[in-house]
Amino acid sequence: MSAQSKEWILHSVIFSLKHERGSEAERQFLEDGKRILTSIPTVSNFQVYKQVSVKNEYHHGFAMEFASQADYDAYNEHPLHVQFVSERWEKEVEKFLEIDYKK
Amino acid sequence: MSAQSKEWILHSVIFSLKHERGSEAERQFLEDGKRILTSIPTVSNFQVYKQVSVKNEYHHGFAMEFASQADYDAYNEHPLHVQFVSERWEKEVEKFLEIDYKK
Repeated sequence: MSAQSKEWILHSVIFSLKHERGSEAERQFLEDGKRILTSIPTVSNFQVYKQVSVKNEYHHGFAMEFASQADYDAYNEHPLHVQFVSERWEKEVEKFLEIDYKK
Repeated sequence: MSAQSKEWILHSVIFSLKHERGSEAERQFLEDGKRILTSIPTVSNFQVYKQVSVKNEYHHGFAMEFASQADYDAYNEHPLHVQFVSERWEKEVEKFLEIDYKK
């Protein structure tokens, strides 16, 4: 885990896809998400997780760390993120929940 | 972060308390949760987080890592966990959602 200042944020999104579980389309979405979002400079420690608890309705998780709110804002506003959301996320994600952790 | 085998699990629970935000009762719950749950031997890297996203309805997070499902089960069944759930969690937590991440 990166050095953590008071500004540090652990951003996580749990989600389920419209694609069939275990499908090539699912694998491609997860791979593309990692490739595209990790190319945004303020993103660190990007993780692709399987969400395995049966106590919620989500099957995947992306998690990433930001050194500050400014870095998080830069990610949200970055053209690669905006494009990924409009071209992939909004079309392929069935439902999701965002979680932001601070120390 | 600990060494991560295929068995590794990152368990997280996001929750809101019945207590007033910023109250002594809130502070005590978070402190007691950390103290009690970290005394269970299979728990590692326990974290108490503020959940700051306005896109969900939870205000706090506990996160912890387990080396395996067996270690996770041992935590769930541990008398200190069972007692914490029945004596504190069920009385003081308003709502919660559990998330389990695997690599």
